[in-house]
Amino acid sequence: MKTQTLKGFRDFLPADAIKRDFALRKIKEVFRKFGFDPLETPTLEYEETLRGKYGEEEKLIYAFKTKGGDEVAMKYDLTVPLARVIAQYGANGQQILPIPFKRYQIQPAFRGENTQKGRYREFLQCDADIVGVSSPLSDTEMLALIYELYKNLGLDVIIKVNDRSNLTAIEPKFLSSIDKLGKIGEGNVLMELQDKGLSSQEAVATLNKVQILKPTENLEESLELYQKMGCPKDSVVFDPILVRGLDYYTGIIMEVVLKLEPNASSLGGGGRYDKMIGKFTGIDLPSVGFSVGLDRTMEAMEEEGLLPALTTETKALVTVFSPELLVKSLELASKLRQENINTELWLENGSKLDKQLKYADAKGIPFAIIIGPDEVRNDTVTLKNLPEKSQETLSLEELIQKLS
Amino acid sequence: MKTQTLKGFRDFLPADAIKRDFALRKIKEVFRKFGFDPLETPTLEYEETLRGKYGEEEKLIYAFKTKGGDEVAMKYDLTVPLARVIAQYGANGQQILPIPFKRYQIQPAFRGENTQKGRYREFLQCDADIVGVSSPLSDTEMLALIYELYKNLGLDVIIKVNDRSNLTAIEPKFLSSIDKLGKIGEGNVLMELQDKGLSSQEAVATLNKVQILKPTENLEESLELYQKMGCPKDSVVFDPILVRGLDYYTGIIMEVVLKLEPNASSLGGGGRYDKMIGKFTGIDLPSVGFSVGLDRTMEAMEEEGLLPALTTETKALVTVFSPELLVKSLELASKLRQENINTELWLENGSKLDKQLKYADAKGIPFAIIIGPDEVRNDTVTLKNLPEKSQETLSLEELIQKLS
Repeated sequence: MKTQTLKGFRDFLPADAIKRDFALRKIKEVFRKFGFDPLETPTLEYEETLRGKYGEEEKLIYAFKTKGGDEVAMKYDLTVPLARVIAQYGANGQQILPIPFKRYQIQPAFRGENTQKGRYREFLQCDADIVGVSSPLSDTEMLALIYELYKNLGLDVIIKVNDRSNLTAIEPKFLSSIDKLGKIGEGNVLMELQDKGLSSQEAVATLNKVQILKPTENLEESLELYQKMGCPKDSVVFDPILVRGLDYYTGIIMEVVLKLEPNASSLGGGGRYDKMIGKFTGIDLPSVGFSVGLDRTMEAMEEEGLLPALTTETKALVTVFSPELLVKSLELASKLRQENINTELWLENGSKLDKQLKYADAKGIPFAIIIGPDEVRNDTVTLKNLPEKSQETLSLEELIQKLS
Repeated sequence: MKTQTLKGFRDFLPADAIKRDFALRKIKEVFRKFGFDPLETPTLEYEETLRGKYGEEEKLIYAFKTKGGDEVAMKYDLTVPLARVIAQYGANGQQILPIPFKRYQIQPAFRGENTQKGRYREFLQCDADIVGVSSPLSDTEMLALIYELYKNLGLDVIIKVNDRSNLTAIEPKFLSSIDKLGKIGEGNVLMELQDKGLSSQEAVATLNKVQILKPTENLEESLELYQKMGCPKDSVVFDPILVRGLDYYTGIIMEVVLKLEPNASSLGGGGRYDKMIGKFTGIDLPSVGFSVGLDRTMEAMEEEGLLPALTTETKALVTVFSPELLVKSLELASKLRQENINTELWLENGSKLDKQLKYADAKGIPFAIIIGPDEVRNDTVTLKNLPEKSQETLSLEELIQKLS
């Protein structure tokens, strides 16, 4: 019998699930505040819907044929399903989605990545997109959303931006080398450019040509409006060598990095894609989107101590002193739950108190409550603070106040 | 280009996603209150992990071979992944999960069902299980959880219970007919029993034999404790003909129905399965679990008007009066967002006000805010209540108060 997680996939035991839930709640809060609404699409799509959208990476799609004969594929990202939704329910479809459409979507995506890179094959994709607007202001709105998002998570970040239309004059294969400048340094970039067929002089000239690029007019306008929205000027920097998947984006592109580690891997990215949805609807619909790199973002939060270090969300274990006093424990557990205190009740009769306290401690429950004969006589309870190894005697009212 | 949802699957556009989110938040609240912690497992498992667990239904599993050669299957339920997790991380595995383990898990499951029955092939499974305790008290805890769960959703339900050990004397094929008594009536049940080989006398005798069964001692004790936990006596009824997937359960079984429609399809169900986890760990670990039938439960809530009738969670659209006044609208949107008011900003410059108001109305945003020259001069805003077709002039403070 296989008793292992499938290779390349992972389980979220309570400690990890609690952390992720915490981060997602903060992210959703900001999505909503900016007027984005939730959307969910199925895990599976017709394979045809996904084909021809991801270039080289297409080989990583999980596809198979069902017993019913449907050729299906597991979601590879949330952008193609969004495009399909717009075609199906938008102006050229059932006409039930008003445009502009602002949606957020938090669902798993699946990629048959090489697991040696430490990547998971299932990951929670966490996107916000604005469909149907092409103005510089809509790019600004996206930047303001990103700024607020990471601020709400407690992270100090820089948003690097560039305009894809700045880069059309340079061959994509050279751009992918130049994109690595921050990570591998100038010498290595020049060597790569030469490996790709440039002379050493041409390599230097090509790199220079990109480095001296200036923000486009559109980008200038977006950045000006960004400040007027009350966002700090220095939280966005123009980065002429920022590239990001060229075959896809058509305008602004952005990438989020930690202020203190600007060359480490990014915490998220996105950009404008004005031609993608047209592949589905037949009519181009300008769009801009952003995707939180949730794993990397949570790693950064973990390093900063910004995630809850809990193995349980349960506040207290109500122990059972003896079979005769079971009912007292039952009643107390019910009362605490009525007060919205997350409460576990020990579910066996006749267990030693010591065993119960050890369980609470191992599980990470901070408080254990004892109702023995003395407590019943005095109409009190004993509250043990397990991490602090202390205890006190309290009335029910005091207990509720303490745990609330 | 395919622009349709895969057959048998569904999209959750904002109105539906908002409803589901509302129900799930209320469900999670109760799971936590009862001391259950979150667990998430991957969408895919090794196919071998799932095989041999679901009997007849096994043919509905989505299974395929990956390019890397792994034979994988999509989650069919959350119970088998839970058993795998216990084997992997519990006492016989990595020893990082304290037992008893109480977890809730809300994730999609996949079944290649016949779509003509109106069933979806992907649905959100919503489970709570207690692993490692066999006491009647743990069955009570489950019943109390169920009672509180539906109460928190606003539904008036009855929990039907039976004890699987009551039914061991009757052949399973006869039980599956008797199980239908409420739905098809006594005459049809007797006919089915005869079709399955009983004489008319034997059919009557078999039905009677089940109908006169009494609660087991364990069940009696659980029900007694249930009342001591403060749950109303009449919210649970003993139902001798309740069956539920016999090959799986070993003790208490339960099914939730609406009080006013006790014979309509159930809103959830579960039971004790003391032998299942042993298949993975080699050592039996007594367990009891419950699964909310989310689609059916939300249907019932919808009928009772218990779900939010919103197409958006956005409270207000800040319109843009003119390019000159754009900055005023920008600033106002930022201020409202700072006050945690879900705010959309109109993102195009130079759109007619009428177009903007129509958009807000079509999207279901209740309020639209206008800042024109008059408003700027008087340091006010105009707030339009779109459903009520009314408007008023307010100061910023009044606006914030109104929308908060």
